[in-house]
Amino acid sequence: MSYDRLTADNTAVLFVDHQTGLANGVQTQSPPEFINNVKALVTIAQIYKLPAVVTTSAHDGPNGPIIPVVEHGLPNAAIVHRPGQINAFDNEDFAAAVKKTGRKKLLIAGISTEVCVAFAALSAKHLGYDVYAVLDASGTWSKLVEDAAVARMVQAGIVPITWVAVGAELLGSWASPTGEAHAQLMGDHLPFSANNMAGYLSAKGASR
Amino acid sequence: MSYDRLTADNTAVLFVDHQTGLANGVQTQSPPEFINNVKALVTIAQIYKLPAVVTTSAHDGPNGPIIPVVEHGLPNAAIVHRPGQINAFDNEDFAAAVKKTGRKKLLIAGISTEVCVAFAALSAKHLGYDVYAVLDASGTWSKLVEDAAVARMVQAGIVPITWVAVGAELLGSWASPTGEAHAQLMGDHLPFSANNMAGYLSAKGASR
Amino acid sequence: MSYDRLTADNTAVLFVDHQTGLANGVQTQSPPEFINNVKALVTIAQIYKLPAVVTTSAHDGPNGPIIPVVEHGLPNAAIVHRPGQINAFDNEDFAAAVKKTGRKKLLIAGISTEVCVAFAALSAKHLGYDVYAVLDASGTWSKLVEDAAVARMVQAGIVPITWVAVGAELLGSWASPTGEAHAQLMGDHLPFSANNMAGYLSAKGASR
Amino acid sequence: MSYDRLTADNTAVLFVDHQTGLANGVQTQSPPEFINNVKALVTIAQIYKLPAVVTTSAHDGPNGPIIPVVEHGLPNAAIVHRPGQINAFDNEDFAAAVKKTGRKKLLIAGISTEVCVAFAALSAKHLGYDVYAVLDASGTWSKLVEDAAVARMVQAGIVPITWVAVGAELLGSWASPTGEAHAQLMGDHLPFSANNMAGYLSAKGASR
Amino acid sequence: MSYDRLTADNTAVLFVDHQTGLANGVQTQSPPEFINNVKALVTIAQIYKLPAVVTTSAHDGPNGPIIPVVEHGLPNAAIVHRPGQINAFDNEDFAAAVKKTGRKKLLIAGISTEVCVAFAALSAKHLGYDVYAVLDASGTWSKLVEDAAVARMVQAGIVPITWVAVGAELLGSWASPTGEAHAQLMGDHLPFSANNMAGYLSAKGASR
Amino acid sequence: MSYDRLTADNTAVLFVDHQTGLANGVQTQSPPEFINNVKALVTIAQIYKLPAVVTTSAHDGPNGPIIPVVEHGLPNAAIVHRPGQINAFDNEDFAAAVKKTGRKKLLIAGISTEVCVAFAALSAKHLGYDVYAVLDASGTWSKLVEDAAVARMVQAGIVPITWVAVGAELLGSWASPTGEAHAQLMGDHLPFSANNMAGYLSAKGASR
Amino acid sequence: MSYDRLTADNTAVLFVDHQTGLANGVQTQSPPEFINNVKALVTIAQIYKLPAVVTTSAHDGPNGPIIPVVEHGLPNAAIVHRPGQINAFDNEDFAAAVKKTGRKKLLIAGISTEVCVAFAALSAKHLGYDVYAVLDASGTWSKLVEDAAVARMVQAGIVPITWVAVGAELLGSWASPTGEAHAQLMGDHLPFSANNMAGYLSAKGASR
Amino acid sequence: MSYDRLTADNTAVLFVDHQTGLANGVQTQSPPEFINNVKALVTIAQIYKLPAVVTTSAHDGPNGPIIPVVEHGLPNAAIVHRPGQINAFDNEDFAAAVKKTGRKKLLIAGISTEVCVAFAALSAKHLGYDVYAVLDASGTWSKLVEDAAVARMVQAGIVPITWVAVGAELLGSWASPTGEAHAQLMGDHLPFSANNMAGYLSAKGASR
Repeated sequence: MSYDRLTADNTAVLFVDHQTGLANGVQTQSPPEFINNVKALVTIAQIYKLPAVVTTSAHDGPNGPIIPVVEHGLPNAAIVHRPGQINAFDNEDFAAAVKKTGRKKLLIAGISTEVCVAFAALSAKHLGYDVYAVLDASGTWSKLVEDAAVARMVQAGIVPITWVAVGAELLGSWASPTGEAHAQLMGDHLPFSANNMAGYLSAKGASR
Repeated sequence: MSYDRLTADNTAVLFVDHQTGLANGVQTQSPPEFINNVKALVTIAQIYKLPAVVTTSAHDGPNGPIIPVVEHGLPNAAIVHRPGQINAFDNEDFAAAVKKTGRKKLLIAGISTEVCVAFAALSAKHLGYDVYAVLDASGTWSKLVEDAAVARMVQAGIVPITWVAVGAELLGSWASPTGEAHAQLMGDHLPFSANNMAGYLSAKGASR
Repeated sequence: MSYDRLTADNTAVLFVDHQTGLANGVQTQSPPEFINNVKALVTIAQIYKLPAVVTTSAHDGPNGPIIPVVEHGLPNAAIVHRPGQINAFDNEDFAAAVKKTGRKKLLIAGISTEVCVAFAALSAKHLGYDVYAVLDASGTWSKLVEDAAVARMVQAGIVPITWVAVGAELLGSWASPTGEAHAQLMGDHLPFSANNMAGYLSAKGASR
Repeated sequence: MSYDRLTADNTAVLFVDHQTGLANGVQTQSPPEFINNVKALVTIAQIYKLPAVVTTSAHDGPNGPIIPVVEHGLPNAAIVHRPGQINAFDNEDFAAAVKKTGRKKLLIAGISTEVCVAFAALSAKHLGYDVYAVLDASGTWSKLVEDAAVARMVQAGIVPITWVAVGAELLGSWASPTGEAHAQLMGDHLPFSANNMAGYLSAKGASR
Repeated sequence: MSYDRLTADNTAVLFVDHQTGLANGVQTQSPPEFINNVKALVTIAQIYKLPAVVTTSAHDGPNGPIIPVVEHGLPNAAIVHRPGQINAFDNEDFAAAVKKTGRKKLLIAGISTEVCVAFAALSAKHLGYDVYAVLDASGTWSKLVEDAAVARMVQAGIVPITWVAVGAELLGSWASPTGEAHAQLMGDHLPFSANNMAGYLSAKGASR
Repeated sequence: MSYDRLTADNTAVLFVDHQTGLANGVQTQSPPEFINNVKALVTIAQIYKLPAVVTTSAHDGPNGPIIPVVEHGLPNAAIVHRPGQINAFDNEDFAAAVKKTGRKKLLIAGISTEVCVAFAALSAKHLGYDVYAVLDASGTWSKLVEDAAVARMVQAGIVPITWVAVGAELLGSWASPTGEAHAQLMGDHLPFSANNMAGYLSAKGASR
Repeated sequence: MSYDRLTADNTAVLFVDHQTGLANGVQTQSPPEFINNVKALVTIAQIYKLPAVVTTSAHDGPNGPIIPVVEHGLPNAAIVHRPGQINAFDNEDFAAAVKKTGRKKLLIAGISTEVCVAFAALSAKHLGYDVYAVLDASGTWSKLVEDAAVARMVQAGIVPITWVAVGAELLGSWASPTGEAHAQLMGDHLPFSANNMAGYLSAKGASR
Repeated sequence: MSYDRLTADNTAVLFVDHQTGLANGVQTQSPPEFINNVKALVTIAQIYKLPAVVTTSAHDGPNGPIIPVVEHGLPNAAIVHRPGQINAFDNEDFAAAVKKTGRKKLLIAGISTEVCVAFAALSAKHLGYDVYAVLDASGTWSKLVEDAAVARMVQAGIVPITWVAVGAELLGSWASPTGEAHAQLMGDHLPFSANNMAGYLSAKGASR
């Protein structure tokens, strides 16, 4: 390949603190947009069988439990409930779970972007991983905060990315075995794509 | 009741030209927001067993078929494929289908707000119906166009409304038989509501 | 007076469903702006000794308890926990509590603007009250929803207003007995006002 | 028809001060959006053979000549170069030209919305015409100014509208003789519409 | 004239609380935009010799003195320093000063839009004046507050307007004696207008 | 030249997946702005006779055919219909077509910015080309996605650019042989430029 | 730790020109948002006992005194009133006060972002400190100015950050001794956090 | 000094194509904001006696003459009318005029940001100058274009800056001989600053 890419074999995905209470603090996307994007990243993990590590911060307190779309969507994920550490890599179980995936490239999403994502990303970078911050599956309290977080991460060499690009880089070619599932992913989470498919099938039928 | 309200007995809902091709022209909400809101109105029609009339404009041409969420969500709706009339009430079958619902209050949503919704709304008002334009289940090409459409409709005495208000007016009380289904509707389409429920159940469980 | 105004003698204030869970769904102002504006309206009720009625919807469920700033700020308010009625005036205790205030003019704020505020406002208007919707002490899920709610209320003759105008109309003159408390209100909730005062005092002192 | 509508027989269109210098002051739409919308209204006048009156203010001075899309697009329009009157109806030639169209309904577009459009609209309303302000074929110096202008016109009973609604009301039915030309109009000025048509034709061809 | 208009003979202008401290609270326009628009309205008063009444609230306290552009620009204005009344018409000297102008139409601008402008406008309307709120020469603490204020005033029959429209209605025709001064006004406060004039003169010279 | 620039001799242009179905998913510019900018880049390719490679992804499926402005505007372009590869450089025919242009500098535009543009740009950079992402002739699903894509590309050393800058760098001097065609390009796609020209010619004529 | 972090032992905080007059010039956040964020940073300094240096520019002139929340919140801070130097590090007392903290990492906030923050940050970087610009506790005259300031600082290796991230990095773990105070900080300044806590406690109680 | 700064001795300022016709194409700031910022940079050049080079592109054609604020404000500037070169440094007279200033640091402002500013900046950087792009005294056709231009320049090591920062870096200390003129500059172009001064003087007087 002409540059070093995400593949189903070299990539793991980390969901950091997608908890119900924290999700209600997100103001950088509208709630329907945010939940849609988180769902899409979960589905990508399913389709590409990416090892996933899910972690929470004080999940039995006011931060709340894992949001259902993440919990139900990733039944095989390693789950690490952190008792207090804010940077997920400060938790040995989490760091071990990530290491155990054996993957070099880490996709990180979470709430909030400037804490849960950025701290984990900076640590992962320091540990030698290639780190991608999945920005649209992450959220925070204001646009100003998000912009500062992205600037800090980019400055540190972390790659900013969004779920459609993650999925497309993993897919590689529509002729791959995951092509059909991937098309379903796109239709379910990018509505114009479903519209195009329905219109196309209708037009083909109409000409019969 | 202290003012004249929407009830499950006096209300019908009209979906005007929610077609795949037209949906791709909507620029007044992001696509995930728009599809979420249309789905919610469809679900309200289901829960309250509102008579629904669905109509299309040239559905076998480039406007495309009915978007799946409307078509599949309203299996019992009357469907009127208009051969060319832009104002749905210019189509006799449509006008008859609406009349046949026997309802005095009409909820109208569609694409686009200033044509498909506004024209039908103005005609319905003229015919003596109480007319409500469901703005978030409708969309159009730009904010400027939407604002002009709303101003025109309000000027003509049409009531601007959005789906949460429609649903709440129909529900009346959480103690009503539709309360449980309504809570599901809210959780599915207002993500903070689902988060609150999950957090609440978790907190209750945590204290056991 | 040259037009019919809000006074401390003719006005009551209604807080409808300012509950913790619902507050987390507000997307029409940033959270610091919203809480600041609610606090200001609470303080106005204190300063002008306005009779206040606070009501909740399912406060022991996921909607959550009354937000502390309202609960603690209005220790003498009538509180009506509605078991299920969405329109507060459908609850007889609430309607009675409002009636008992003996006031003709009602300030209504709540979450959400298009349901809790608009429904109560439409009913109150129907019952013959002069109704003012305090928009910045209210909030809802999106700007589109808020705009529709305001348009619906204005169409029905409800007066749109915000807390600074409410306060100023009640104050009437800075020479009134509440002037000092009112100045404190302004400084606490409109930061530029506190800055002006501090700068003014400093400049006066500096010239001594 | 179920309400009083724009038709090719009862409607004239007025272009007020679409001049090159003034066009450069428009800040309410991006320049490509604005010119696109003006072109569309010009084309509607062509398709429906609407009598058009074009007027300018000091066109041989810094306001500049008529913008080419209006001048070339309406070769049969009456043109009235006003020597100084700001309100076009203060110019007798203009008022006479409008009267000579014999139409009851007037579409008015221009630069700027709050002066050239609003003044002419208020005068036309006063003279007994049905007046429609075509907002997206008009522009002005800021959003604040545009919003004030629309509010003033709506308050005075002038109908706010945009070109797609104007065209659709005139077309009435896609089966009318102007249907084909109208489809071309839509494709040329609403890009998603051309995309849908091209995609549709391609899909039909692909299935052969 | 074809509708009831602002003229130099029937119009007075009221500047309510354009004070330095209050001006620093304006967040509805950028400061350069706001000061530019206030200056323009002052200049209009000069050009058309409109009787002007300037009033302040506690000008020797933290609200600060009249902003220089108003104070220096209107040397002949009646100035009423209100000791405490918030609604300027509650001050007898102010009400008398306005009455003394002998004008039927009142232009009102001020800080803030929802208090100083709206209260005075509602009182003036009640007193039988034709009232115009000059929105771009007024400002307030947030867009939400401004929108509510405009909606309240429009609901009460007050005309929303902006300075270019005020000026143009007063000018009537560029051939009037004030034409030259008015052109200077436009060039000074609408930069594109000055650019057009300079470009025009240059082009004319270039062709000699 | 004082820095390494785009010239008609060292530059090729790549249009990646400008297809009708994908174009309907663009939400980062309004449709008239986007199509205007794509047209402009096509015209630049014509004027400077830049070798162009056009590529599609599943053009006979729901992504749809090449948008007409690209297809008709570049009759001599190499066209590579990719059967499935998402990164255009993964398709050997495409890579060969680019290589065959013999150019060192590549302008890349496409839909979507974060996939079709960014993937090709990263590969081209890796292959040793100087890469420029033409951002306004590209588009994607949301501003958040676009911002992430630009940050990723800039981080990787790809140059962000827009069509006016591309054209100006190629033109170098208005005295070059392409000056006249370039002026036409500017007038057609930057409306203020056409207005300036028309006003200038009018002013020159007026002074004769 | 897996990367070089802010700790209570290696960090000092500098408040540069948070003065009442300057605060009234901030247009990059709403006033309630800005004051909320400054307060939060002050509270962080208290909780973590960070050495703080507060400095002013001409505090006895029109820039005004230190805003109360900073002055009262940091009773132990070193305060340096600069007689004229704009870059705080040009003042020897200030430079000495910073040096005396003995800390390697400096958090800098101030008004304005591009002058008071950026100049001090560039100097501190040059002097060998690790520099963090706390963007949400800083403000300036427009978004354009803020964006330029952030870009300049990031280009120079200064880390962009916001108060929640500052606090979280200092806290490290909720199990640390400052955990309780930190939770109070979050509740007081991120309203959703207080709502979550109140809802959680209510739900736990409700299940008893 | 603790970092390499702009001083009155090491800095020259270049105004590139601030022409009337081009100014009318600026859509990245409102016209009053833009002209205000250009004026401020001109005044800075006056106060600090910075050598200035002004250049135009086809000033006797539709681009129009130099905008008056630049032409009249810089009577001693070198003026180079370029016959056709787009990059000002491609014109030998311009390059010589810049070299003749003998300054190492160049402030560059112009219309448009991505062409006139960016091209000159890239060339100047290549020639060994320290280059600062003064973004608020520059403008272009859209935010998207401006953002791309800034990203390109920052990537190339050009410093993004705005006029207040330029002025403050040149001033250094309010105690410098230019302090009084600088205070006037601030008051004239940052309205809150003039308000603060007037309020301060009033408060001091009030306490006598």
